[in-house]
Amino acid sequence: MLKAYKDMNTEELQKLYEQVLAEYDEAKAKGLSLDISRGKPGADQLDFSMALLDVMHSEMDMITEDGTDTRNYGVFDGIPEAKRLMGGMMGSRPDQTIVFGSSSLNVMYDCVARAELFGIMGNTPWCKLDKVKFLCPVPGYDRHFGVTAQFGIEMINIPMDENGPDMDLVEEYVNNDPAVKGIWCVPVYSNPTGIVYSDEVVRRFAALKPAAPDFRIFWDNAYCIHHLYPDKEAKILNILEECEKAGNPDIVYQFCSTSKITFPGAGVAAMSASPANVADIKSRMQWQTIGYDKVNQLRHVRFFNNIEGLEEHMRRHADIIRPKFEVVLNTLDKELGELDIATWTKPMGGYFVSFDSEEGCAKAIVAKCAEAGLTMTGAGAAFPYGVDPKDSNIRIAPTMPSLEDITEAIHLFTVCVKLVTLEKMLGRLNG
Amino acid sequence: MLKAYKDMNTEELQKLYEQVLAEYDEAKAKGLSLDISRGKPGADQLDFSMALLDVMHSEMDMITEDGTDTRNYGVFDGIPEAKRLMGGMMGSRPDQTIVFGSSSLNVMYDCVARAELFGIMGNTPWCKLDKVKFLCPVPGYDRHFGVTAQFGIEMINIPMDENGPDMDLVEEYVNNDPAVKGIWCVPVYSNPTGIVYSDEVVRRFAALKPAAPDFRIFWDNAYCIHHLYPDKEAKILNILEECEKAGNPDIVYQFCSTSKITFPGAGVAAMSASPANVADIKSRMQWQTIGYDKVNQLRHVRFFNNIEGLEEHMRRHADIIRPKFEVVLNTLDKELGELDIATWTKPMGGYFVSFDSEEGCAKAIVAKCAEAGLTMTGAGAAFPYGVDPKDSNIRIAPTMPSLEDITEAIHLFTVCVKLVTLEKMLGRLNG
Repeated sequence: MLKAYKDMNTEELQKLYEQVLAEYDEAKAKGLSLDISRGKPGADQLDFSMALLDVMHSEMDMITEDGTDTRNYGVFDGIPEAKRLMGGMMGSRPDQTIVFGSSSLNVMYDCVARAELFGIMGNTPWCKLDKVKFLCPVPGYDRHFGVTAQFGIEMINIPMDENGPDMDLVEEYVNNDPAVKGIWCVPVYSNPTGIVYSDEVVRRFAALKPAAPDFRIFWDNAYCIHHLYPDKEAKILNILEECEKAGNPDIVYQFCSTSKITFPGAGVAAMSASPANVADIKSRMQWQTIGYDKVNQLRHVRFFNNIEGLEEHMRRHADIIRPKFEVVLNTLDKELGELDIATWTKPMGGYFVSFDSEEGCAKAIVAKCAEAGLTMTGAGAAFPYGVDPKDSNIRIAPTMPSLEDITEAIHLFTVCVKLVTLEKMLGRLNG
Repeated sequence: MLKAYKDMNTEELQKLYEQVLAEYDEAKAKGLSLDISRGKPGADQLDFSMALLDVMHSEMDMITEDGTDTRNYGVFDGIPEAKRLMGGMMGSRPDQTIVFGSSSLNVMYDCVARAELFGIMGNTPWCKLDKVKFLCPVPGYDRHFGVTAQFGIEMINIPMDENGPDMDLVEEYVNNDPAVKGIWCVPVYSNPTGIVYSDEVVRRFAALKPAAPDFRIFWDNAYCIHHLYPDKEAKILNILEECEKAGNPDIVYQFCSTSKITFPGAGVAAMSASPANVADIKSRMQWQTIGYDKVNQLRHVRFFNNIEGLEEHMRRHADIIRPKFEVVLNTLDKELGELDIATWTKPMGGYFVSFDSEEGCAKAIVAKCAEAGLTMTGAGAAFPYGVDPKDSNIRIAPTMPSLEDITEAIHLFTVCVKLVTLEKMLGRLNG
């Protein structure tokens, strides 16, 4: 049984500090080079998709079910079978679905860019407005905030609990301020907290009464089938159906991709929305491109066949990454569990563990890690403008390194957490 | 020896009209369904690239020369070997080159969108200006004009001769009017005229002294290696080098793609520009996407190896499409050559023949073709706003149909040209 730091006197803390410092110096002397900063699949996960390359070969026809030659120009909104496959992930009908190229981030960026340039469904282009605001549940996905930051959109932090964003606050902003045009959501296994939105949260989203007619929920369903435990798969309400039921069919843009299913950056991205939104988007998209990569769309359909094929494939991924999550969570538990100096999430899916240290320690911990050869996501990265008001949140991404490296990395991380916390308690932490 | 229509009296014209009308009615009765409207490769051309699908398979490594796993996230500006391959097409160095996804139209659209939203190299975003103008050499590529039209950019027609755009007029506009921010150019085998810009024209472009610091030449080198005759391959001056020499390194954005080399819509697109432009563009792009499809980039490099591989491949394309162009040109010559009622271009490469009827006849000819089951590109499509001031230009795209269909289509087309011209001369043409 370990003693909580707060129950120790200065002498005990000082003694412990010296022990932890020695441990840190020992680790540092190893000259490690470890990286748990980005949510990338490991090479062994990518290997599962190598057969994707074989399903389209030179002896094969390249024709869609409706007779389109995928090798030639045309069909800018996706081939029918790809709409069904990606719609299966998102719970959308083909008339609600557009299939794009390889990057869902690019699809989201383009949705914001189109709203800025041309406006949404006949409303004023955002670039003509004095002020545009987005709500940002925090901690969240740094690249979401990067998009809105680039467009000069004011970002407002929204706290999250285990059920999703603080919906009282969301309603307060959305239903009253016409400058609030959007909110970034990762409803399943949220990046980085792993939170799954509750039915009540989804229903309250669907029932919003936005002051702005061009307010949209940016529903980034990036991890919708990225479960860690086959017997505990998160299932959320279908946002498109809930919005329809609530008389708000146009309020949401939903996104997904196969980036963390097949090959990141060489997969297929898609979005879904009401037919009115789809028509609005297509009316602009028709000048942007003649069409996205239909060969790769067909390749993915032939590899997976349908949503069941996707889900089966993801269970193989889970078998690889589950032990990595478990070593992270077990080590945090063992090393820090009784010290009362940090909290962290225990996700059932997705790509991250979200860690909260004592206030004012996150930057120092990440710096200590870097000094010893361990790259963490930058402290504050999960917040708009890169500013974590409490300087306590750190994102842990366990998927990419080997199990061995993860084990070493997370142990070193706990040493840095202890060291910085002790420095703080002993008044030695430099701001 | 045929007699020119203008040398006929009314009685002769009337008699001829009845003959041509009978011929037209006969053709119409066949219930044809022909299409020479779009610049698409034929299926036999696409077949040449089927081995592209085999060069990446499950037993192969997916690693670039610098050790990047193309299957994972990262490298948003293109893998090094793809920069070399695409740079080989454009005559650009790697530090001048960015490699994207499959659509160069999308790359051009994004360049305009970025200028509208963020401005070019620190200049005012175009969306904040009262007026932005683009010069449009005509006839030109309809989708270029579609992009600028969508952004509300005013388009100004610039006449072309066999050497390229009227450079006196280009200099007049660009060097004096700060609202002129760009010009659309297809410098090699121009769409649709097949014109190749002369050395003098390229040098005058490079030596422009724009009134606007953010003026850019949009140099769409879509057909740079799309020669029809191996012994008469067009070679233009390197625009990047000429601009550097003229002290204007930043004045040009160059674009190209493999769309009409491998699979349209599933190829690789690229752009090149000065390192300062590249840095400016990448500073924005980094928020747009994590990266384009590197697997497909590597696939193309492994298929072609280098620019020589690309050129060899294009000679096989030429062997297929040259007879199609020749049947078009020979038929036009035989049927219309001595009638003095039309002119047309004799391209040495590219995808189009540009045809000019008597003034005020183009729309009626295209309509007559449609009535008899032959789809042509819409009259006026090659002009900004779809308006051909003389209503005389028609674009002919001979590549997609079979040689047999092309032969039938172009003959029918000449019948329609004669019919409409005679109707006009006999005062029977409805406006």
